Amino acid sequence: MAQVTQALALREGGFARGPRPQVPEDLHAHLELREVTLPELGAGQVLVEVILSPVNPSDFFYLQGAYGQPRQQGQAAGFEGCGRVIAAGGAAGEKLIGQRVAFLGSLSGAWAKHAVAEAALCIPLHDAVSDVDGAALIVNPLTAVALVDRAREGGDAFILNAAASQLGRLMLGLARDEGLKPVAVIRRPGEEDALRAAGATEVLVSSAPDFMDQAGAAIKALKPRVLLDAVGDQATADLFFAMPARAAWVIYGKMSDEAPSLGQMGQFIFMGKTVEGFWLSRVLPALSPERAAAAIAQVQKRFARGDWQTRVAEEIPLDTALDRILPAYARSAGKVMIRP
Amino acid sequence: MAQVTQALALREGGFARGPRPQVPEDLHAHLELREVTLPELGAGQVLVEVILSPVNPSDFFYLQGAYGQPRQQGQAAGFEGCGRVIAAGGAAGEKLIGQRVAFLGSLSGAWAKHAVAEAALCIPLHDAVSDVDGAALIVNPLTAVALVDRAREGGDAFILNAAASQLGRLMLGLARDEGLKPVAVIRRPGEEDALRAAGATEVLVSSAPDFMDQAGAAIKALKPRVLLDAVGDQATADLFFAMPARAAWVIYGKMSDEAPSLGQMGQFIFMGKTVEGFWLSRVLPALSPERAAAAIAQVQKRFARGDWQTRVAEEIPLDTALDRILPAYARSAGKVMIRP
Repeated sequence: MAQVTQALALREGGFARGPRPQVPEDLHAHLELREVTLPELGAGQVLVEVILSPVNPSDFFYLQGAYGQPRQQGQAAGFEGCGRVIAAGGAAGEKLIGQRVAFLGSLSGAWAKHAVAEAALCIPLHDAVSDVDGAALIVNPLTAVALVDRAREGGDAFILNAAASQLGRLMLGLARDEGLKPVAVIRRPGEEDALRAAGATEVLVSSAPDFMDQAGAAIKALKPRVLLDAVGDQATADLFFAMPARAAWVIYGKMSDEAPSLGQMGQFIFMGKTVEGFWLSRVLPALSPERAAAAIAQVQKRFARGDWQTRVAEEIPLDTALDRILPAYARSAGKVMIRP
Repeated sequence: MAQVTQALALREGGFARGPRPQVPEDLHAHLELREVTLPELGAGQVLVEVILSPVNPSDFFYLQGAYGQPRQQGQAAGFEGCGRVIAAGGAAGEKLIGQRVAFLGSLSGAWAKHAVAEAALCIPLHDAVSDVDGAALIVNPLTAVALVDRAREGGDAFILNAAASQLGRLMLGLARDEGLKPVAVIRRPGEEDALRAAGATEVLVSSAPDFMDQAGAAIKALKPRVLLDAVGDQATADLFFAMPARAAWVIYGKMSDEAPSLGQMGQFIFMGKTVEGFWLSRVLPALSPERAAAAIAQVQKRFARGDWQTRVAEEIPLDTALDRILPAYARSAGKVMIRP
């Protein structure tokens, strides 16, 4: 019997035309709080009572129709969360019933009181892992693992911007532990010491008047050949053109609304530089199940030990979420969480 | 005994700082007509009496210090030409003495009455190949072969701009003969029929008011996934963002002084698009000697048969070249040639 639940449901389906801002102007234009009917539980699927679900930058792309997959009209938004499994569609999921798990909202969105999830993609949570850490256990940590893998292809040093973000901190720790030398770029001063403690070899502040001089010195000393970019502004382009031959600009996010210009196109020709994108959904199928499982296990261990911690900006109940998410998101680099 | 010759010699060595225009403002700032001493002939090297040498866009990059190799102060500019071998530094080159050859100016520049060249890179010319075709036998044709190889990796359709250039026409013929579907982009109307006859499946005019509509229709019909770019302007960037998922923007020249902006960076992330450069000097070592020799032989056959023809804008003697090259270059899409 199909289950009805309360959800932040998408008003429109499919893709929007043209670019969209990183952060939407008004969530009410894209979502509405209402009852939705969940899909019937298939074999290998489970019903999850959602405990917490984070607001990721990719959720904003998706709900505006600017993500790599089309919106499902009338379904909840939300890519991941943690919750308790309360029913299973077949034998595969039955052993999960009663367990607290991290899950992906690939079958129905996670911004809802209940969600349908693939049992195979549910990760049972250790007791030592908090709800908060469990809710953001999949997208950011797997992205960090895959991006640091990509950075390593360019040598032992790399540059990452938006380094004070949750994902940035995960990458700094991972990179340091693997003997790499990450150069962290942040927009405003204040977190330099914290980021060095988190694993950064160098910290650069892009709003500083001598940013490009500082960057030039760090680039000369460390020769980073990969630039992991979640910002996409002109400062990032300038940094790319200051990097050595064969540098790769790997774009995985777009926090700035600037359209950076390519001022030195000869570098593509003569220095073998490249621009590429990174999307977890494209990389995951190429990641072996063993590598993915090992990465998730490692991630969970880091959270359980307290090496990593998900910083929470605010927990917001479902019924006031549409008014409160954007102000909370604007206030802090920590995660905004929905507690349905 | 070292040989002295008349040459267009480089005033400065090394690299210039920052970007340079595609076409220099004044050649006298970079070159002077004077006597230079050629390097001693080493084993495997030959002395060539130059007959003709073309002015390639890459020469302009080089003489301004904006190429991928540093300028050699006091040496002649000029990357290639044809001439008659008049002396050899060892047994390897002796069989070439008296022969008319295409040569690369890698040991001393080709914009001179004499040049020193590697015997192994000299290509004896069939009688049916004219001086004009022989002078431009290496750089453009090998570039065309390597770029069409790259285009084929993306499927059977691709886009190339500056399609009315000598190199563009070479690629159109090559692509058509190999069963590919090239979409030719030109800036001004007038050569549509000629380019269709040369091999273009579609011809688009980038200054036309409905350019993007036309481009959209061609892209929808043919699904080109590689964009071979010698221009680097905003229209090229717009075209790239109108192409389907996994499209590659391959930059091999920079005729425009615009710095195009990246308006839809989400396409790198979600559509797997990429930007890369192409430089013959980087590709040649990866090309097997057999493939390179086969390509050159094929090129020479095309010229000998009259399938291909180097269009000449003007032949200019060495002693007035510094005043006459730029006006001649501006007047025509054909090759400007120096006849020392």
